[in-house]
Amino acid sequence: MDRLTEIASKAREAANILQTLSSTEKSTFLNTIHSKLISAKSHILAGNKKDKDLALPQVKSGQLSASLYKRLDLEGPGKFETMLQGIQDIEQLQDPVGKILLANRLDHGLNLYRVSCPVGVLLVIFEARPEVVANIAALAIKSGNAAILKGGKESFHTCEAVSKAIREAMEEEVTKKMMMEDVGGDNKNSMARLANAIQVVESREDIDGLLKQDKYIDLVIPRGSNALVKYIQWNTRIPVLGHADGLCSTFAAESAKLDLVKKILVDAKTSYPAACNSTETLLVHASHLNTDFFSQLAQTLVIDHGVTLKCDPKSLASLQKPSVTQVFQKNNNNNNNNNNNNHMDKVQPSQDEDYDTEFLDLILAIKTVESLEEAIQHINEHGSKHTDAILTENEAEAKRFMAGVDAAGVYWNASTRFADGFRYGFGAEVGVSTNKTHARGPVGLEGLVIYKYQMHGNGQATTDYGTGEGKKQYLHERIDI
Amino acid sequence: MDRLTEIASKAREAANILQTLSSTEKSTFLNTIHSKLISAKSHILAGNKKDKDLALPQVKSGQLSASLYKRLDLEGPGKFETMLQGIQDIEQLQDPVGKILLANRLDHGLNLYRVSCPVGVLLVIFEARPEVVANIAALAIKSGNAAILKGGKESFHTCEAVSKAIREAMEEEVTKKMMMEDVGGDNKNSMARLANAIQVVESREDIDGLLKQDKYIDLVIPRGSNALVKYIQWNTRIPVLGHADGLCSTFAAESAKLDLVKKILVDAKTSYPAACNSTETLLVHASHLNTDFFSQLAQTLVIDHGVTLKCDPKSLASLQKPSVTQVFQKNNNNNNNNNNNNHMDKVQPSQDEDYDTEFLDLILAIKTVESLEEAIQHINEHGSKHTDAILTENEAEAKRFMAGVDAAGVYWNASTRFADGFRYGFGAEVGVSTNKTHARGPVGLEGLVIYKYQMHGNGQATTDYGTGEGKKQYLHERIDI
Repeated sequence: MDRLTEIASKAREAANILQTLSSTEKSTFLNTIHSKLISAKSHILAGNKKDKDLALPQVKSGQLSASLYKRLDLEGPGKFETMLQGIQDIEQLQDPVGKILLANRLDHGLNLYRVSCPVGVLLVIFEARPEVVANIAALAIKSGNAAILKGGKESFHTCEAVSKAIREAMEEEVTKKMMMEDVGGDNKNSMARLANAIQVVESREDIDGLLKQDKYIDLVIPRGSNALVKYIQWNTRIPVLGHADGLCSTFAAESAKLDLVKKILVDAKTSYPAACNSTETLLVHASHLNTDFFSQLAQTLVIDHGVTLKCDPKSLASLQKPSVTQVFQKNNNNNNNNNNNNHMDKVQPSQDEDYDTEFLDLILAIKTVESLEEAIQHINEHGSKHTDAILTENEAEAKRFMAGVDAAGVYWNASTRFADGFRYGFGAEVGVSTNKTHARGPVGLEGLVIYKYQMHGNGQATTDYGTGEGKKQYLHERIDI
Repeated sequence: MDRLTEIASKAREAANILQTLSSTEKSTFLNTIHSKLISAKSHILAGNKKDKDLALPQVKSGQLSASLYKRLDLEGPGKFETMLQGIQDIEQLQDPVGKILLANRLDHGLNLYRVSCPVGVLLVIFEARPEVVANIAALAIKSGNAAILKGGKESFHTCEAVSKAIREAMEEEVTKKMMMEDVGGDNKNSMARLANAIQVVESREDIDGLLKQDKYIDLVIPRGSNALVKYIQWNTRIPVLGHADGLCSTFAAESAKLDLVKKILVDAKTSYPAACNSTETLLVHASHLNTDFFSQLAQTLVIDHGVTLKCDPKSLASLQKPSVTQVFQKNNNNNNNNNNNNHMDKVQPSQDEDYDTEFLDLILAIKTVESLEEAIQHINEHGSKHTDAILTENEAEAKRFMAGVDAAGVYWNASTRFADGFRYGFGAEVGVSTNKTHARGPVGLEGLVIYKYQMHGNGQATTDYGTGEGKKQYLHERIDI
């Protein structure tokens, strides 16, 4: 057995035990991990310093970005404590395992239960932020899953120190559990395997090998760049939970109110342009062109917030009218600032590809549509099924939009930037999925569980039931849960 | 655009409209399909006769099996009516779309709803039975999904006639809908595309092309042989709902009662050996060997039901004792039948591979285990995660088994053959899944839906919330559904 198959099969063995633990046992594991991380703080921060020392020259030479360096830093104010708090928060969440989701009485004494259970073995691949190791370990254990983690090479020493503390916590708890239950023989070996519930691998090459372990690994969760996610999606048969693109659109419908549109678009475009839930395309109803509505909206975005607009011919023409152009230029002069740019430089013609581009920047593609149907069709063709919004005062139109747009999030009069597990109130976010199966949108702990059917009988055979003499009929009654 | 991309993109366009239809509209579509199939009966049966005439020489020459020929036949008593009834049954099921699964109040006037919606576009690949076209069309429309269907080449003419009737029904209803809603312009073109909701392709090569259409197709459902399912799983990036193997085990634990074990094993092994939910391996607790329990169980299976036992050394030795062997031979002589086989011929040593083999025949692998843990470990290592049973009078042991065995179905004192959508009371069965994500076990209509998040706001921006002066806090209250 090669090294990666061994890692994967060990994870599977650990998962087989993990799935049988009680909520209390899982909480104990999480609390011990929490304590061990506190004890290991100086060791972890020493590892983090090593990583930062190695990264700093690369930041200076421009090979690594300053933002990556910042994410790498676990010494920053409150960062270590936030990591610790995250484990406690996850420990406090409701156990997603063992919930009865459906119960059918097939016959007297023959009951069927659909019960939530862990998915099994997770492979989580992430980039710079080293605290993700602790976060994912906690999410995995809470939901009864084993996990294999691969962090970015920049955070190698930090991840190593964090995972060492986690492993020590697991081993300590497993030993205690074996002693308490007086486990012996076969069971002892099997129980000891539980300590492999969280494993960390280090090299990029390991990813390729692990992506082939579909016999043992049930779900891959990539948390990182589009390039990382796409690479993984294309190179494994294992289900992948994630999203490569976030091409979100907002449609300003005919009845939309200007103040509402302004406020929401400023949030959706400018509050964090690099986020996957930022709006990249504004669909504007044709009735707004050549009115104050559109020119004022454009002024807010361009002049007040520095957004560049990539306009289709109709919307461009509407902004290139002398009366509008004048305002863009006058405003610039009035401010009397040192910025000599004419704001009209930020009003540009769009190219076809702009409607398929995730700018992740202060750039907004604008497209004129003649109808709600055209807006829906544009989104279904160009969007990434992440999150799309309609701004309208017309409820029927909003409902039509929310039914007709095929996306994880369909919003009425709200910013696309609400698409986030914490904003949704999920307590934890495993990732955002644009998949059409299993879990969609911001995914909480429930994305790490599936269900199994438990049948409780007392000797029934299928040949007892059917048509003909002496055969019984199924009851098929719903049992109240 | 090549032909298969066109088929797939047409299906996507149809799906975009289908997802917006009301339950009543979908019922009307199903009722019209039902009527059209009645009108087309003679045409469909003529197509079926053509298929049978082409198949008959192949059956005679041994190229096609008699059972395949039987499945192909739509003229048999009640078969056409069963197909029709199936459509009416599906029409009567609860609409799986539009259910509110979760509702959170993020703030006053900012509500989040998780609402069930269709997956989108299905690719369904099946073998001989031509009535599957009507069945899948009905399941797809009921759940708001478009479907591309590929039947076996043996049923080509029947499938063609059935799908022609379905297409006529769709076109008729779409025309009516357009007239009623006075749809014009863009919307007219878009509505007309709804008639492409159900498309049929014919050649094996088309499958390969369609498996690449992950831009348009959301879910592949293979219904057929292990070889077909495996081929599809290995040749597409699109999620596949199905199961290749059905290697089910039954564990006769220490406290199991002989009568119960006998009855359940006869059902699980002999009632339909070719079914995926038949038991292939019997795990027997070591305490039963060298007792009447095991020899009587073996006699029932071998002598009364003609099952061949592939035994591990311990269980084999237990059956090779003179006192037991005598019974097997005496029984044979007593019956005084023409069958001169010594029943002991059916008691054979097992090979390692027998525990990984889906016999689909009157063959049962037997393995002795010393403990519940060993039984669970054997199943988790050798099973196909389909359905496994424990037979025991010990509730704690049963619970431990049901938690520790990683399978879609985990049964206590019931036959593995209950694993079936109709027996579970689901009303319809899309397939049986051994996946660890999305849908598991027998899958009803709920396997054809996913959910989207609808947000209803009145102008909220994410920057309204947070810490600091003037910022609001999220409420995160559960809304009663």
